[in-house]
Amino acid sequence: MPDIFDKHLPSLARDMTGEGPRPFYRAMASGDGEALVEGVRVVMTACNDYLGLSGDPRVTAAAAKALDLYGASCSGSRLVCGTLPEHEELESRLAAFLGCDEAIVTTTGFQANLALTPLFGAADLVFSDMANHASLVDAIRLGAAGKRLYRHSDMEHLAAELSQADPGAGKAIVTDGLFSMEGDLCRLPELHALARRHGARLIVDGAHDIGLLGAGGRGVAEHFGLPEAVDLRTGTLSKCFGSIGGVLAGPADVIGYLRYTARPVIFSASMPPAALAAALAALEIIQAEPERRTRAFELAALLNEGLRELGFDTGESATPIVPVHIGDAGLCGRMWQEVLDEGVFTHAVVAPAVPHGQALIRLSLQATHTEEHLDRILDAFAAAGRRLGMIPGPAHAPGGAGASSGRTRTGTQAGAVAPRPSIGAQRGALGKQEVSVR
Amino acid sequence: MPDIFDKHLPSLARDMTGEGPRPFYRAMASGDGEALVEGVRVVMTACNDYLGLSGDPRVTAAAAKALDLYGASCSGSRLVCGTLPEHEELESRLAAFLGCDEAIVTTTGFQANLALTPLFGAADLVFSDMANHASLVDAIRLGAAGKRLYRHSDMEHLAAELSQADPGAGKAIVTDGLFSMEGDLCRLPELHALARRHGARLIVDGAHDIGLLGAGGRGVAEHFGLPEAVDLRTGTLSKCFGSIGGVLAGPADVIGYLRYTARPVIFSASMPPAALAAALAALEIIQAEPERRTRAFELAALLNEGLRELGFDTGESATPIVPVHIGDAGLCGRMWQEVLDEGVFTHAVVAPAVPHGQALIRLSLQATHTEEHLDRILDAFAAAGRRLGMIPGPAHAPGGAGASSGRTRTGTQAGAVAPRPSIGAQRGALGKQEVSVR
Repeated sequence: MPDIFDKHLPSLARDMTGEGPRPFYRAMASGDGEALVEGVRVVMTACNDYLGLSGDPRVTAAAAKALDLYGASCSGSRLVCGTLPEHEELESRLAAFLGCDEAIVTTTGFQANLALTPLFGAADLVFSDMANHASLVDAIRLGAAGKRLYRHSDMEHLAAELSQADPGAGKAIVTDGLFSMEGDLCRLPELHALARRHGARLIVDGAHDIGLLGAGGRGVAEHFGLPEAVDLRTGTLSKCFGSIGGVLAGPADVIGYLRYTARPVIFSASMPPAALAAALAALEIIQAEPERRTRAFELAALLNEGLRELGFDTGESATPIVPVHIGDAGLCGRMWQEVLDEGVFTHAVVAPAVPHGQALIRLSLQATHTEEHLDRILDAFAAAGRRLGMIPGPAHAPGGAGASSGRTRTGTQAGAVAPRPSIGAQRGALGKQEVSVR
Repeated sequence: MPDIFDKHLPSLARDMTGEGPRPFYRAMASGDGEALVEGVRVVMTACNDYLGLSGDPRVTAAAAKALDLYGASCSGSRLVCGTLPEHEELESRLAAFLGCDEAIVTTTGFQANLALTPLFGAADLVFSDMANHASLVDAIRLGAAGKRLYRHSDMEHLAAELSQADPGAGKAIVTDGLFSMEGDLCRLPELHALARRHGARLIVDGAHDIGLLGAGGRGVAEHFGLPEAVDLRTGTLSKCFGSIGGVLAGPADVIGYLRYTARPVIFSASMPPAALAAALAALEIIQAEPERRTRAFELAALLNEGLRELGFDTGESATPIVPVHIGDAGLCGRMWQEVLDEGVFTHAVVAPAVPHGQALIRLSLQATHTEEHLDRILDAFAAAGRRLGMIPGPAHAPGGAGASSGRTRTGTQAGAVAPRPSIGAQRGALGKQEVSVR
């Protein structure tokens, strides 16, 4: 008799759980740009805590205070018994921050996107970028609307789909603001123009850009100088906010409708007190300390430049997410392992997170990274890339974890190429001003 | 041009947001069986913290320590950078507790159910109780399997659906363990027999029963003495565990498969450190202090008895969830308000949480409730029910919030009926042993 449990792991997962590299589910503790992975201290470049706030003492102190005052959980949904005064405070402060009428917070960012579902009715059409986050994809799947996928950031494809669409349908264009795997931005001006032309609403998931992009950290809309372009925003509190939770922000009637119809809001225990307080404290810091954003971008530009000089393909990113394009998933796994052996934990990105054959290593920078971290990252990529023949230069013998720092820089080993100047020296040469990060 | 934002609130929500009773989205802080709702102290009966652990000092101290050690967030998914040693510890301890090979924790209980989706393939059939939780319903919607709904706990209907089903399909029966709105249990022995007969797997959502049911708190399977009956369990850490998060527990190959395929696991930031530590501490208490379960059941039995004596219909519940069946949603709202005016916050349950015309007031008891709380609840229901003509006895004039305690008991007002003996007196008369709750 057939058994519903008789399922098989995708080949990728089989590859990644065998004898080879094990990039996934490694136990670790991380903070301030470093991590302890199974006892070994490494530079951490796989974390989305872009502003370095999850360990900020102001954030953790606020969380501890809420824990003491309210306990570990509300043990109920927002609707019934899970609304603390701080839920309302966070919502009104996020709405003001994002320039929207109203906001509602959810228990995870994933659930913020799922909460869009009641907007996608049977008479509607949703136009979705093929590279959108899984939670947006699932929100659309759960909805009753028709779905039109367009190739990643391909505005001609989107325009064609919109032109062919039923003029009697309600329409929404749904896109990530900052695409999380390759670090590129949505084409907001074009999306805005197309949305206006076709009477479509523009819904942007700001998971990776709210807090990080724009002078005030308000996300892609502020970055592009188009504060009115986005009709409805979703976002997460687990990245720039260093907490956990999600948010939807937009017109009062839309948020009011979702409060009573979105199942991940109505039927899920609310954001717990500690997470709420952490997010409130983080929001204050995000607004008060723009230098954290500057710092993350500055570090990313230096890393990008250094990786390109070494011969790596870092694509189009102009954000603190820096991809190193590799292509083959097997090579990506080996590169990930070599870089880890050199003392740097990265994120190996393979299908289904990116299309097959487009594997990459993703590096995300945090405001709490130092120039020394950058040097260690570049040294690790130089040594690993040469060993695997990915970039020019003679290969070294594999080094032990954490043993490579400064090796390419000092060039003392036999066969070493010309020393790579340290990031500290480059910064000095560029005359860039030091940015203070607590 | 049609606008996708042009949606309308369900009539219920319109009713509940107008001038009448406002049972939803009230800001409050609660603990130890009481709550402060907009400045007024009331008895809290709408919270799912059945064992009273969310405010337990051992739970909050563990959470505070983790916050200090690891920060407010892992800022990444379990897969990439969000696995702390404590995630692994909680998983192995939950698996051992539930008698399963392996477990995986998720960031919310809602996401634990959504994580079932990859099991529901195109060649499969899922048989689902019509009263199942929204997150189970959405997991099935997201999957590719065929869906067969059976009437709530109607085993004949389920048997008929199974008999008519394609014998070549993989099959799963999916049910809540303890149905959360009416407090009744799934019919596990019959479900088990049907599952065996038809080669179906039995998947039980233990959101409300894990921690609460069975001598060891292992849920409905232990309660029914059928530890092998459930093939896969899901659950939440926001109710009996007083924290936030979810869990799936079952055979190693099934959990291993879900680790690499379940999108709410792969694409959502992991359970934060404070929530993990709170859940670990709670699990220890759940195992060490069975008297908390006894206490919640004992209080519920007394409440049930008291409400029936007053003339209310409390249905079939034999758990700490006690429903008061009302029927009409408008009357339910008025009753909810009258009871609140008497100093007791309850949960008004209307469609879509229950079928139309089956509105009820749901009371959930916690181990931290006292006999005095029970008296206040019964006094409130007596006064409110008489004013609305729902139960026999002369109506009083409406009282102020919190002003009614002891009124029916002392019977000093004009027109008062015979005094209802206090729960403390009843307990003495029944000779029941006092149960210590810290």
